[in-house]
Amino acid sequence: MEIIKVSANSRTSAVAGAIAGVIREHKRAEVQAIGAGAVNQAVKAWTLATGYLKAEGVEIVCVPEFVEVNIDDKVRTAIKMVIETR
Amino acid sequence: MEIIKVSANSRTSAVAGAIAGVIREHKRAEVQAIGAGAVNQAVKAWTLATGYLKAEGVEIVCVPEFVEVNIDDKVRTAIKMVIETR
Repeated sequence: MEIIKVSANSRTSAVAGAIAGVIREHKRAEVQAIGAGAVNQAVKAWTLATGYLKAEGVEIVCVPEFVEVNIDDKVRTAIKMVIETR
Repeated sequence: MEIIKVSANSRTSAVAGAIAGVIREHKRAEVQAIGAGAVNQAVKAWTLATGYLKAEGVEIVCVPEFVEVNIDDKVRTAIKMVIETR
């Protein structure tokens, strides 16, 4: 399963659709964001996806964790949100 | 139960401690944030609190929603994160 990587410039509706699509297929999705702008877009997308899926009778919950990722040889701390059906 | 309101200037460790404390007492906490900086602090605090509680054998999950709040007679859209024990 691919991690959905979110940036500060990601469109929330597109990310929300991606989250909902992965949940429908796998019952689990992972979303990764680095930095305040990206985290904010990820949270808005996750909130939208929660609404989309709730309308279909699917409840999702999220557990977050910090992960270290290498970008251009620099270690950055990302938030990884693991979203699953309840 | 009080809503834990987070701003862009909130200290993540203080907010994380507040979340963990409310969860220990009520098994449920609500966190509200408006704007990218506040949402980022809220997510970092929630992630820290998830770790604190996991170390005590307590698993928490979160469901987000959009809420409209009145601030200085202006309607703003906030993210409300409802955090509960699994």
